[in-house]
Amino acid sequence: MNIVAAQIEVIPANPMVNAAKIIESAKKAKQFDRNVEMVVFPELTIPGYLIGDLWEERSFINECKTAENLVRQAAIDIGMYIVFGNVCVRNATQHDGRIKKYNSLIIASPNNDENEPLGYYKDSHGDWFIPKVHLPNYREFEEPRHFTPLTDTDYIQPIIIRTCFGEHIKIGFCICEDGWDYDYDIKVNALLAKRGANLLINCSCSPFTLGKNDKRNRVFGSHAKSAGIPLLYVNAIGCQNNGKGVFVFDGSSVFYNSEGQVILDLGMFKEKLFCINTDMFDVYPEAFTEVKRQTTDIDEAYQALVYGIKKYCEQSGIDNVVIGSSGGIDSAVSAALHCAALGSDNVYLINMPSEFNSETTKGLSYQLAKNLSCPYAIVSIKDSISLTKNQIDGLEFKTDRYHYNDSEIVHLSDFNMENVQARDRSSRILAAVSSGLKGRTVFSCNGNKNEVSIGYYTLYGDSCGYLAAIGDLWKTEGDVNVYAIGRYINKLAGWNIIPGDIFNIVASAELSKDQNVDEGKGDPIVYWYHDRLFKSWIQDWDRKSPEEILEWYLNNELNSKLNLPDDVYELFPTAEEFINDLEKWWKQFKGIGVVKRVQSPPVLVISKRSFGYDYRESLNCCMFTTRYKELKEIALKKTE
Amino acid sequence: MNIVAAQIEVIPANPMVNAAKIIESAKKAKQFDRNVEMVVFPELTIPGYLIGDLWEERSFINECKTAENLVRQAAIDIGMYIVFGNVCVRNATQHDGRIKKYNSLIIASPNNDENEPLGYYKDSHGDWFIPKVHLPNYREFEEPRHFTPLTDTDYIQPIIIRTCFGEHIKIGFCICEDGWDYDYDIKVNALLAKRGANLLINCSCSPFTLGKNDKRNRVFGSHAKSAGIPLLYVNAIGCQNNGKGVFVFDGSSVFYNSEGQVILDLGMFKEKLFCINTDMFDVYPEAFTEVKRQTTDIDEAYQALVYGIKKYCEQSGIDNVVIGSSGGIDSAVSAALHCAALGSDNVYLINMPSEFNSETTKGLSYQLAKNLSCPYAIVSIKDSISLTKNQIDGLEFKTDRYHYNDSEIVHLSDFNMENVQARDRSSRILAAVSSGLKGRTVFSCNGNKNEVSIGYYTLYGDSCGYLAAIGDLWKTEGDVNVYAIGRYINKLAGWNIIPGDIFNIVASAELSKDQNVDEGKGDPIVYWYHDRLFKSWIQDWDRKSPEEILEWYLNNELNSKLNLPDDVYELFPTAEEFINDLEKWWKQFKGIGVVKRVQSPPVLVISKRSFGYDYRESLNCCMFTTRYKELKEIALKKTE
Repeated sequence: MNIVAAQIEVIPANPMVNAAKIIESAKKAKQFDRNVEMVVFPELTIPGYLIGDLWEERSFINECKTAENLVRQAAIDIGMYIVFGNVCVRNATQHDGRIKKYNSLIIASPNNDENEPLGYYKDSHGDWFIPKVHLPNYREFEEPRHFTPLTDTDYIQPIIIRTCFGEHIKIGFCICEDGWDYDYDIKVNALLAKRGANLLINCSCSPFTLGKNDKRNRVFGSHAKSAGIPLLYVNAIGCQNNGKGVFVFDGSSVFYNSEGQVILDLGMFKEKLFCINTDMFDVYPEAFTEVKRQTTDIDEAYQALVYGIKKYCEQSGIDNVVIGSSGGIDSAVSAALHCAALGSDNVYLINMPSEFNSETTKGLSYQLAKNLSCPYAIVSIKDSISLTKNQIDGLEFKTDRYHYNDSEIVHLSDFNMENVQARDRSSRILAAVSSGLKGRTVFSCNGNKNEVSIGYYTLYGDSCGYLAAIGDLWKTEGDVNVYAIGRYINKLAGWNIIPGDIFNIVASAELSKDQNVDEGKGDPIVYWYHDRLFKSWIQDWDRKSPEEILEWYLNNELNSKLNLPDDVYELFPTAEEFINDLEKWWKQFKGIGVVKRVQSPPVLVISKRSFGYDYRESLNCCMFTTRYKELKEIALKKTE
Repeated sequence: MNIVAAQIEVIPANPMVNAAKIIESAKKAKQFDRNVEMVVFPELTIPGYLIGDLWEERSFINECKTAENLVRQAAIDIGMYIVFGNVCVRNATQHDGRIKKYNSLIIASPNNDENEPLGYYKDSHGDWFIPKVHLPNYREFEEPRHFTPLTDTDYIQPIIIRTCFGEHIKIGFCICEDGWDYDYDIKVNALLAKRGANLLINCSCSPFTLGKNDKRNRVFGSHAKSAGIPLLYVNAIGCQNNGKGVFVFDGSSVFYNSEGQVILDLGMFKEKLFCINTDMFDVYPEAFTEVKRQTTDIDEAYQALVYGIKKYCEQSGIDNVVIGSSGGIDSAVSAALHCAALGSDNVYLINMPSEFNSETTKGLSYQLAKNLSCPYAIVSIKDSISLTKNQIDGLEFKTDRYHYNDSEIVHLSDFNMENVQARDRSSRILAAVSSGLKGRTVFSCNGNKNEVSIGYYTLYGDSCGYLAAIGDLWKTEGDVNVYAIGRYINKLAGWNIIPGDIFNIVASAELSKDQNVDEGKGDPIVYWYHDRLFKSWIQDWDRKSPEEILEWYLNNELNSKLNLPDDVYELFPTAEEFINDLEKWWKQFKGIGVVKRVQSPPVLVISKRSFGYDYRESLNCCMFTTRYKELKEIALKKTE
């Protein structure tokens, strides 16, 4: 049997556009070979996946059915089975009192035959569908909020497909999470195999996450191997968001043989149709050798970042991006990524010096713009900062009461003036400049994950921007980080397109005399340690807190537990210093960090835990546990 | 049997503080009468309810158990049953691979008796607990993300409580949503009654929503009535948030007799212990008459707003709030609410005129500050706007390439300059002023729900602030809206503390000559219509879209369907004008509105659907359905 895997881009919340793409791709699939009998699309091909609470809009659900009907007709017209994802409804209410909705697969048939049972349930229009069994409910996933799962395992059966040669092939279909079954009681693939499937097909809409594809190959490969039948995995490409998080979908659709080996790989971030003759694997297994992954994590992360920027701008109608260029690594990497995504002509760099910016960074900023061939401008913030200082410092508030008058004076400290600078750059200059350029122009937020974690940035200042493109990258941690992406960009270019000195200067906000890069003074963050500390609070599935950190510290195992490249015990000569640092950042992480994140731009997600709806948080008191307090007492006594 | 209902404030994410409050309240409860045998607290008393993904922090879960053990010991020491809520864990993994967690009730017993079966399951420490059956998963609720529900109905049984007189009373306990069972298959209260309960107790952590208490009295009253036994409902007070939404908990704990009538009401937003002798209702039912609700929606909304501001500031350590005072109704209502919550001395009003601000509004702003006795200052934005105009308008971007040079000029239009003004006021002045005042000072966001819906405000301008206190209030719709709250404030004060003319002038942003209030020119929004239009897109459980609106329009039933106070058919003389208006706002609602909301402050929630995690949204293309397009064609043909 000839099956075409259709790795296509799905546009969220636009059913008719997706239906048209499905039909167009189905026609192309038929051109591979007139004996192509089925084309398979990703999960929720018609509605898209990350669409917020749009599932509650009745007219949207109806539109999805209208779009589905077009594809059903196309299957008859083209003369092949078209397998695609849609939301299906049944005449019953679910937990929230709304109509029962299912994340479903539709098998549109070329046979105009009402008696062909192509699913488990019939929808409210009398059409067959296959509902999803496992609805993920963690990270950014929240399918049970909208969908009803299939819980009766009796329904889970292979579907009989009639080929044009009169054969009956039993295919076991399932949807995304149904393949990730290790924490669920129902093992969908095993059931389908046990019940006679000759082939397994998993349709997914699974976002890119660093390291996920290797894991999927292990998990899905083992399904194929234990069932002893091949498995086709078809995933979407594209970019979808939930407001606070921008997710890219990499495709990476693969075909596993009955040994569980990957023998076809459709690659990342590209639309691709691929025709598979399922019989050939049985007849000539030796003709197919395992496809090994050619890319490293950093290759993939770079691709994901560039693709995400490109697609998010495309979908939002953004033509140009203005980037505040400080001469530091974050804005340099952000600028280079934007150039790769949008072209240098559409990336405007602007340097906004104050009295505290060194000639070094001003020079590096200019050099970067020259190297990247970006339009460049310099706008000083000196006059505006003076104006604000003069106007606000010393401002008198008067209270006009019946009997007496009060007055109070506003005083702007040096620290207050640091924030004034940051806000002036973003909310005044970058916002005005981007509004005044041709086309639809926005400006970027260049914050990294370390800063975002503990709120080391100014709200309405460097917090601002249309997207935090590197907001899910640590500064130094792991194989993929801000510096590593910077070096990778230079490697790709074949020269130091990001000037080498940008990697060498100390990381600094340059907002005061105490942050002079030429004197080697910079941020109060020790990136090699704090990156890994903050990561343990956020990204570990078994989440850490000061309690575990202090326990490890006391057991002399903190270096190894956090995989530190240097010795944290040397960094903090005393337990007191260690604890002060730990508590200071924990308070910022749980306090001002949350306040700022609530009002921060969307983050382009690449890790397995990003800020936004992936990592949900409330603004609460910052609490230290009883156990932590006991450990603290022990630690401080030890040093006495 | 004497039972004390303990309506207390729960502090989210602070187990030991809540445990101490429980123990202190239990001691007080015992003082009512030495025969008090049980005190009942709200749902999740120990951990709190809205704490984001903190449930994933193992040390937090352990801390909850530590806190629980203190209360268990206190029950023995004090000599009474203490019923309270906590998170309980069992040695098994749930859907996400993490340890199985339950939203539970604990019945801590005064009898140090291991054989007293006070629950359905034992936790991993061997202690009994009662798990919640129905886990809400809509609006801001997402309990299935973290908790496992009880699904086996055999477990649902009344608990036998031994009174000090040796009686055995069967109490049917359940948790919040278990009482709201009309859309769920399992009817918990009916089961408990059928299985012999003499009394029903529902422990809740249920946020305030306009109109909810009436509905609860109908639903819970009917549980009591159909079971023929009394029902005690104990709800928390306090303020909890999920980052984007600030929710107040009103308490409103009540006791329903076996007729389903409310015979005791603990009131709103106040901690209160109340001792109930359950026997008395049986012996002297005539001594208790139904308690009728004394408050109206607007009373309750006002209380909720003031309480929310007060508590959110208290929890965040905020001492003072600066309010940009324009002389318009939104900032006036925001200022008056803040004064009621924090005291006038802690509310700083600041007027920031440009050339476009009328003497009328400047005068009203001053009058407001005088009436409220607030500290007041005026800071002009003229100089800073000129500076920005001079510095940015005409700015040249140059591209330095190998072979040639490009250049491009920034041009600031009048519209761009409107946004420059708004950003100057918030990000420059309000941010600097609040940073430079004594204590912890922030500034407020004064946007209303209409503006928030369609993004009629400037990002990094009037979008900014620590909280959108009136962000869930429509300008004119319903009994509770911005104007109505303003009038209510004046009624409470007994005089026009908010100057009368503030209600009379046209609503205007005063950012250009075209928005001159003295000439009656203002916002491009027709509040009496657009409030109700936008509400139908957001707040209706069965969500509306342009498709339904246009259908109603064509059927001549739009006035009645949207409950309009005036005639929309007169407002738009032609179908074309109606459609243009409809499409314009729909696009803004789905486009720039989302962009701005992602970066907007938390909203103080009072409605049954507020922006934030209550109403989840993605930034997608703005789509019009096929049916809408058909209707549009009909509408436009009709008029030809």
